[in-house]
Amino acid sequence: MAEQTIAEPIAIKRIGSFHVEGREAIASGLPVQEVVYTRGSPPRPLDPNGEYEVEQMYVQYVQLEKAKAKYPLLMWHGGGMSGVTWEDTPDGRPGWQSIFLRAGHDVYVSDAVERGRASWCCIPGVYEGNAVARPKQESWEGFRFGPIGSWDPDPAKRKSYDGQRFPIAALDAFQRQTVPRWTTSDIPTQRAYDRLIQKVGPAVVMVHSQGGNFGFTAALNAPDKVRAYIGIEPSGTPPPGTDLTGLRDIPHLVVWGDYIDLVPQWTESRARIEAYGAAIRDAGGSFDIIDLPALGIKGNSHFPMMDNNSDAVAALVQDWMESRNQME
Amino acid sequence: MAEQTIAEPIAIKRIGSFHVEGREAIASGLPVQEVVYTRGSPPRPLDPNGEYEVEQMYVQYVQLEKAKAKYPLLMWHGGGMSGVTWEDTPDGRPGWQSIFLRAGHDVYVSDAVERGRASWCCIPGVYEGNAVARPKQESWEGFRFGPIGSWDPDPAKRKSYDGQRFPIAALDAFQRQTVPRWTTSDIPTQRAYDRLIQKVGPAVVMVHSQGGNFGFTAALNAPDKVRAYIGIEPSGTPPPGTDLTGLRDIPHLVVWGDYIDLVPQWTESRARIEAYGAAIRDAGGSFDIIDLPALGIKGNSHFPMMDNNSDAVAALVQDWMESRNQME
Repeated sequence: MAEQTIAEPIAIKRIGSFHVEGREAIASGLPVQEVVYTRGSPPRPLDPNGEYEVEQMYVQYVQLEKAKAKYPLLMWHGGGMSGVTWEDTPDGRPGWQSIFLRAGHDVYVSDAVERGRASWCCIPGVYEGNAVARPKQESWEGFRFGPIGSWDPDPAKRKSYDGQRFPIAALDAFQRQTVPRWTTSDIPTQRAYDRLIQKVGPAVVMVHSQGGNFGFTAALNAPDKVRAYIGIEPSGTPPPGTDLTGLRDIPHLVVWGDYIDLVPQWTESRARIEAYGAAIRDAGGSFDIIDLPALGIKGNSHFPMMDNNSDAVAALVQDWMESRNQME
Repeated sequence: MAEQTIAEPIAIKRIGSFHVEGREAIASGLPVQEVVYTRGSPPRPLDPNGEYEVEQMYVQYVQLEKAKAKYPLLMWHGGGMSGVTWEDTPDGRPGWQSIFLRAGHDVYVSDAVERGRASWCCIPGVYEGNAVARPKQESWEGFRFGPIGSWDPDPAKRKSYDGQRFPIAALDAFQRQTVPRWTTSDIPTQRAYDRLIQKVGPAVVMVHSQGGNFGFTAALNAPDKVRAYIGIEPSGTPPPGTDLTGLRDIPHLVVWGDYIDLVPQWTESRARIEAYGAAIRDAGGSFDIIDLPALGIKGNSHFPMMDNNSDAVAALVQDWMESRNQME
């Protein structure tokens, strides 16, 4: 892996951000509120009726002075998370945003529609349904930090999986990275990702968990612009029967952590993803799998980019990109 | 102003992020929900009861290989906004995050408690009151883009102030940067800012609008760690009568845009801020004012960091920092 050492500076051409997509939503008929904006000051009237922007997506980019990768790397987070997934790990080590910058990629980190800096909307009627959040127990069991049934609110009383590589002592720091989510926002989210690819592509998409299907679908929607798909524990796929012949020239990679057999949700998810991969291969495309435990790398959670071997997993992904002719 | 040209790369030592503060909140007695996580798939039960983290603040840092400033620059946004305030302008020019990086500062951009990547919490009972949002008209009039009464939903029919420097053609892009806010979160927000200063200080705080009072108070709470205060159109102050003798060694700067006399809210705000400044001076401290129109620089809005002369305003601030012995 051709990578700068940690001691070398990263030469940046530009750092910045933008929003993509979004539409106007109009609130009407809502009562005027009296709002105390600062404790102790008199209330001021707030008329919430009027025009808003909603369903935009946030993208922060860091462009290198001299990228070594052919295409920018778009990093899309999973459900109930934001782009912070790719920044420093919960225990404070460099995240994949900086690891892949050092490996020579321009990186574009998104916050999906209604998450993080994309912003949710508090005006009634804009979204279908309610926001949901993820309590710590759901993270603990669903992200395979510890066995189902092992959760205890007292850290001393809960037992993680043997050999667990997630920095579980930093569970609260991880939990602070989580954000509420609507489960009804897939359509505007896909639209925003597709728009991003039109704006900055050709590009490589690296996706995590819920981002997995947005990435698969983005490749189907822009086979001329998506140059590689890298799914880190993706959770979903396009519908069975989708015509995949357009994907023939797009190398696909999926990375799996450990303990998947122990959690039905992920056992099923992996089976769906690998069936999709088999269908891509049947259509003449390529679909590679890095099954970390099968390589003797045990103990990875659903968040390999945060686990204590996150650098080593990133290096495997980088090696794959080199083998797939993604670097200059 | 000793500044790199736009063509030179920025040499970065490290880029990353963390959350500060936060506390556990426990939900109990809430009904289990049936959630369709992906359109077309069967609903799965979600038990929202359990432990969450709330009231954390998000901080993204970019550390230079060789900073020229003595102290890191902490950038705190205003009400209903996030750290995106300091990134690219709504019309796509480099923002103050990158301008001040190029001027030699390590920068730490925050998203305040319950805003942006700090994350709000959707569990009932955690916050006092409801979230409020800002319709476009309130931005237009309150941020002094156009006169009170000049708003029209049709861009062709609204008339901005003569000489307005805000990129009003990008109003929708600006509006996509706004986020809902609670007006009852001042206490945990101040706590998080104070903690940030303990963590990364000594430091310079640059604040905008609602951030203004958080910065003033942070200086009072840590006079040994806040090395300068830079208020860009700050909106509030600590209570009259506060003992300000601790601020004697902290240079304060406030920057004002144009049209303030035309909007009562800002006329009052400026008067309050300048009375506070006079009290700092009375206590033996320093409080400087850059009144842009008085310098012949007309047309700035409430967001000078986004106006079409944002680079020139940044240069004035940088010159002030140099004059106040903030650079190596």
